[in-house]
Amino acid sequence: MAYLDHVRACNDFDPAGFRPFRAGADRIGYVRHALADELRRWPGVFRVEEGSVSLHPGLGDFEARSRAVDAPLRQLASEGLIESWRDEPYPVTPDWHKPPLMRIERAACPHFGIRAFGVHLNGFVRKPDGVHMWIARRAYDKPTFPGMLDNMVAGGQPLGIGLMENVIKECGEEAGIPKEIARKAVPVGMISYTHQPPEGCKPDQMFCFDLELPEEFMPHAADGEVAEFYLWPIGKVADIVRETFEFKFNCNLAIIDFLIRRGVIAPDTEPDYAALVHGLRAGQ
Amino acid sequence: MAYLDHVRACNDFDPAGFRPFRAGADRIGYVRHALADELRRWPGVFRVEEGSVSLHPGLGDFEARSRAVDAPLRQLASEGLIESWRDEPYPVTPDWHKPPLMRIERAACPHFGIRAFGVHLNGFVRKPDGVHMWIARRAYDKPTFPGMLDNMVAGGQPLGIGLMENVIKECGEEAGIPKEIARKAVPVGMISYTHQPPEGCKPDQMFCFDLELPEEFMPHAADGEVAEFYLWPIGKVADIVRETFEFKFNCNLAIIDFLIRRGVIAPDTEPDYAALVHGLRAGQ
Repeated sequence: MAYLDHVRACNDFDPAGFRPFRAGADRIGYVRHALADELRRWPGVFRVEEGSVSLHPGLGDFEARSRAVDAPLRQLASEGLIESWRDEPYPVTPDWHKPPLMRIERAACPHFGIRAFGVHLNGFVRKPDGVHMWIARRAYDKPTFPGMLDNMVAGGQPLGIGLMENVIKECGEEAGIPKEIARKAVPVGMISYTHQPPEGCKPDQMFCFDLELPEEFMPHAADGEVAEFYLWPIGKVADIVRETFEFKFNCNLAIIDFLIRRGVIAPDTEPDYAALVHGLRAGQ
Repeated sequence: MAYLDHVRACNDFDPAGFRPFRAGADRIGYVRHALADELRRWPGVFRVEEGSVSLHPGLGDFEARSRAVDAPLRQLASEGLIESWRDEPYPVTPDWHKPPLMRIERAACPHFGIRAFGVHLNGFVRKPDGVHMWIARRAYDKPTFPGMLDNMVAGGQPLGIGLMENVIKECGEEAGIPKEIARKAVPVGMISYTHQPPEGCKPDQMFCFDLELPEEFMPHAADGEVAEFYLWPIGKVADIVRETFEFKFNCNLAIIDFLIRRGVIAPDTEPDYAALVHGLRAGQ
């Protein structure tokens, strides 16, 4: 296999099975045809048509939209059509820097094809024999991707806090990284893709951070979401990404981005170089 | 103004004034309608139609195509329709890693909308008061963009040598950087855009390199292409890029990419962050 297989796996969305989800003139997501039919039960909230689903135009502002949508979502969750309710409000906006149109429960996002934002942090150590990267193995009892490899710290981006603030919070919760170290994380770019999981569509953007750690620092999972941490030479990490699907799907992209930015994947030797650079931002 | 203005300035191509330039089934460029009419003079080389210009299908391989095209180009140059002939053969290929379809004189590339490849190197110094970047001012007698600001080292990518090899060569020629230092340049990514200069279309890809230099190193223009070098704090460089058009158009993008990768442009504070990340690779 090749690094590019991960870019392809993260960009497997086929709009044929979906119809656009609109709020006024804006497309804010995609809904599977089967879910669209369920939404006909709430005509005061959703307008379901052959080619689209729209929020009822009478829902004129952020609070009205957010409140109106919440009850149907809870009903769908109670029927098992939306699983793993988290009580985490996510913003509904195609651009993190634009005012969100409403808030929506995190678990509902992929069902409605809502863009989710996240932060991914690659923690690394410079040793005499080269760069090493901290890798997390997700807890075996996590509801999503149990036991898979992951970036040192990663998390969804909830409403109401900044990206860097979220990084510092997740650093503490997931890896026991104290604030004074986490604060040194550097924002280094953004990755975008459009993935099609069984429950819907994920047109997501991940903000990437690098954090150089002192050699003596040992992470520990503070919140039980991580089973184990490994400190591996960057060449070993690159091999696992290139040859396997052991990492959670989007974590591969955050590592490929790191490898490109640090010259481990180099344009003189990687035939897919241009396709990788473009593919890491293939979401629109 | 905003950083994004440079992304827009580099992506100002409007295909309306052009017709596609094809070799077999592949589109390899774009030709202005006026140049297409001139090419009717060589029916054994170019097939000029209402909606396209194609290489004559009888030109079956790399050598045949390269030789056939050379004479008309020299004629056009002698008539002043192609200026600044450089005797530098460029590959004709949409992807640096694919075998080129033919070679073509560098000066002809924009007239035919051929993708050109280049290397751009940001030289920087870590000082106690922060990162400083080496900036070149182009010689005032250079045929293109005289007197404008530029990356420390940059150059077009000719046929027959590697990208890193080209970086090392240009480092020596343009800034007097010895091989043992230049070799430490790190490939860090690629930028793509589709620019429309007066002479045609530039759907180019720039391979970016970072080179950390020791504080005592002083560059000097070995080949007369640089008037002067400056070592400026990164904040000053960022301000000039954000507020002015003093840099040659595509050098702005190489610096914006550096600023993003090093957290100077940060997602918590830059409202155009996602647009910049995508815009630096807007060429396809």
